[in-house]
Amino acid sequence: MKLTIERAALLRSLAHVQSVVERRNTIPILSNVLLDAQEGRLGLTATDMDLTIVEHTTANVQEAGATTVSAHTLYDIVRKLPDGSEVELAAAGDDGQLRLRAGRSSFALSTLPREDFPAIGPTDLPNVFTLQGGEAKNLIDRTRFAISTEETRYYLNGIYVHAASSGDLQVLRAVATDGHRLARFEMPLPEGAPGMPGVIVPRKTVNELRKLIDEVEEGIEVALSDTRIRFTFGNTMLTSKLIDGTFPDYERVIPSGNDKTMSVDCKIFASAVDRVSTISTEKSRAVKLSLGDGALTLSAASPESGSAEEEVAIQYDGPPIEIGFNSRYLLDIAHQIEGEGAEFTLADSSSPTIVRDVADTSALYVLMPMRV
Amino acid sequence: MKLTIERAALLRSLAHVQSVVERRNTIPILSNVLLDAQEGRLGLTATDMDLTIVEHTTANVQEAGATTVSAHTLYDIVRKLPDGSEVELAAAGDDGQLRLRAGRSSFALSTLPREDFPAIGPTDLPNVFTLQGGEAKNLIDRTRFAISTEETRYYLNGIYVHAASSGDLQVLRAVATDGHRLARFEMPLPEGAPGMPGVIVPRKTVNELRKLIDEVEEGIEVALSDTRIRFTFGNTMLTSKLIDGTFPDYERVIPSGNDKTMSVDCKIFASAVDRVSTISTEKSRAVKLSLGDGALTLSAASPESGSAEEEVAIQYDGPPIEIGFNSRYLLDIAHQIEGEGAEFTLADSSSPTIVRDVADTSALYVLMPMRV
Repeated sequence: MKLTIERAALLRSLAHVQSVVERRNTIPILSNVLLDAQEGRLGLTATDMDLTIVEHTTANVQEAGATTVSAHTLYDIVRKLPDGSEVELAAAGDDGQLRLRAGRSSFALSTLPREDFPAIGPTDLPNVFTLQGGEAKNLIDRTRFAISTEETRYYLNGIYVHAASSGDLQVLRAVATDGHRLARFEMPLPEGAPGMPGVIVPRKTVNELRKLIDEVEEGIEVALSDTRIRFTFGNTMLTSKLIDGTFPDYERVIPSGNDKTMSVDCKIFASAVDRVSTISTEKSRAVKLSLGDGALTLSAASPESGSAEEEVAIQYDGPPIEIGFNSRYLLDIAHQIEGEGAEFTLADSSSPTIVRDVADTSALYVLMPMRV
Repeated sequence: MKLTIERAALLRSLAHVQSVVERRNTIPILSNVLLDAQEGRLGLTATDMDLTIVEHTTANVQEAGATTVSAHTLYDIVRKLPDGSEVELAAAGDDGQLRLRAGRSSFALSTLPREDFPAIGPTDLPNVFTLQGGEAKNLIDRTRFAISTEETRYYLNGIYVHAASSGDLQVLRAVATDGHRLARFEMPLPEGAPGMPGVIVPRKTVNELRKLIDEVEEGIEVALSDTRIRFTFGNTMLTSKLIDGTFPDYERVIPSGNDKTMSVDCKIFASAVDRVSTISTEKSRAVKLSLGDGALTLSAASPESGSAEEEVAIQYDGPPIEIGFNSRYLLDIAHQIEGEGAEFTLADSSSPTIVRDVADTSALYVLMPMRV
C-alpha cells in the first residue's frame, strides 16, 4: 500500500471513524482503523462489533493494499500536522509497520493484519427509503433525550422507529421513553418504508449518526432488516445491529382523555422553571405547577435551601390544578420546542400530561407527574 | 437588611466570591457568603478558612444589616435572572430567611447568622508594595505550571516569592518547582518590597488571584507578613494564609556551567514536540532530542505504537548530544515563551538544562533530563 492524501481530507474521515472506536478495548484489533487503498481512493473502516462505519475519501494511490493501525493514534498525529500538509502513507508489509510522512515528520506505526479485522458480511436489507438531512436530525433531536439509560431495560436503550397510521395518514414514527417521559416524533412515511419492521436503534448508533449528519443537508439512505440498519450519505456508510427486544406498547401510555389545556410562552416558561428549580433538591429536581385562571405559579422548596416561586402568564380556563414534574424533564422538552408556544394537556395531578409545540405537531411529549 | 441592586453588579461580585467556596463543606457556614449591607454598598465575603475574599459593590441600601446564605445557590439564582433585572434582597431577621425578588420571581433562602461566619481578625501586614496587573499576571503564568502537586512536599505547593539580588539589581523573584522542572521569574524590586520576608503563596490562592486579575490593568496592592498575604485591587480584597515551610535552596538547582547553546524557533519546536510525543508512552511522555550541526532531531518510540521522528532547524555548533525530556514539560515551557526564539543551554545528557525566551530574560526554566 502506498498513497498520498491531503491532510484535511484524511483528518475529516478519521474524525468520523475514530469516534466509533472505544477508548478501551480488550480485543486489540478493535482499536484499529482499517485502511484500504484502491484506485484513486482510500477507504477507512472502524467498528465496535455492533456499529461499523465505512468512509471513502479521494487519495492519490500509487500502490493498492490494506492494513490496520490504531485509530486514535493516527487521528492524533494527523490532527497535529500543519494545515495544508500532504500526507504519505506506505506499508511495505515486510516489517509490519505503516510509514507516515508529512513535511519533516515521519512515523512508523505498529499494524495488525487486515485479515484480522472483523468483516461485515453482506447483509440483506430489504427495506430502503430516504430521509432528508433535516428530517433525520429532527427525528433524533425530538426523541433521543428520552432514551432510557437503565441497562436492565435494554429494549428502551434506543429509539423505536416504525411505520404507523395517524388518522388517515401513513407515518414514520420514532418513539423513545425511559418510563418517566415519552417522546414521539412522526413524519409522512417515505416511499419504500411501508412494510418495514419496527426496529429499535441503539443509543450509540443514534448519537454517532447525529454527529455525522450535523452538516448533511442531502438525502440519507436508510436500509434495514429486522436485525440491522444502514445509513448511507455522502461518502459515509454507518451499519448497526438493532436492539433485539420488544418495544413496549407505548400507545397505552399516551393519554387520550386529557381535557384541560394550558398554553404558555415556551421561552419564558423554560427560564422560569430553570430559576425556580435552583432551589429543588438535587435528587428530585421537583417543581410544582399551580394552574389558575390566566396565571401559572411555579414553585419549589427544599429543606436545606429554602423556597422559590415565580408567576408566568398562561392561557387556561379550567379548574385550579396543582401538579409536580421533574424540572430537568420539563427543560428537555422545552428545548425541543422551537415555536413560541407550548401547549400542555392535563387530566389531573396524578395523571400523565401531554406537551406539544403549538407551531409544530410532528412531536408529542408525555410526562409523568411527581408527587410534590 | 434591605436593599436593591442591579443584577449585573451582584452577579459580577458573586462570580468572584463563590469561586473560593468549596463544593463540599463539612462546616455548613463555609458554604455561605456573608452579605453585609452598609450605606450605599453591599459587601460580600467568602472564605475556606485559608483564603478569604471580600468584595464591595454599589447598592441602594434601605436598611443596613448582614446575613449569610449559600454562595453557590445565590450565584445560580442571580445567574439565571434575566439580564437587566433589579434584585431586591431583604432579611427581616425573624424567620431567618433572606428574601430575594426580581421581576416575577421570588425566593426565600435559608440563612445562618452572620455571627457564625469566621471573622478575619485585623492582621499586621508590614510589607506593602504595588504590582501592575501585567506584572502580576506574568509572575503567575511564568511559574505556576511548575508548582508541585505532591501533598507530602507541601512546601513546594505554591510559588515562592522573595526579594533577591541579580547582579547589581534588586529583584522580586518568584520560583516554583516540582523537582522535575523549575520556573523562575524576576522583575525589578518594587518600592516597599525591600526587607520583605520570603513567602510561599499556596496554589489555590495563586489560581484564584489569577482569575480575578484577568482583566485588571491597574495596580494591585500587595501587603504581607511572614504568615499572611493580602491582594487589593478595584473593589476586591483577597487575603490568604501562606504556606508554613521552608522553600528549598533553588539556586543550587540552576546550573551555572552549561556551555552548549541551542537556539530554535519556539513555535516550530513546540508543534514538532507535540506531534512526536503522540507516540510516547502515556506514562513517560519521553521525547529524545538529538542535537547535531544545524539540526535537531526529535524522536519518540513506544512498544505499542511504533516510532516517530521529526527534524527541526536549530542554531548549534557544539558536539552532538542526545538528551531526553518529558514532552509535557517541554510544552509547558514553550507555551510561556512569547517571543519567536527559545534558547536551550545544556551541559550533557544527564544534567539539567536551562531554557529561556530569547526576547525576554525575566523568566528562566530548568528542566531535568530523562533517560531515553
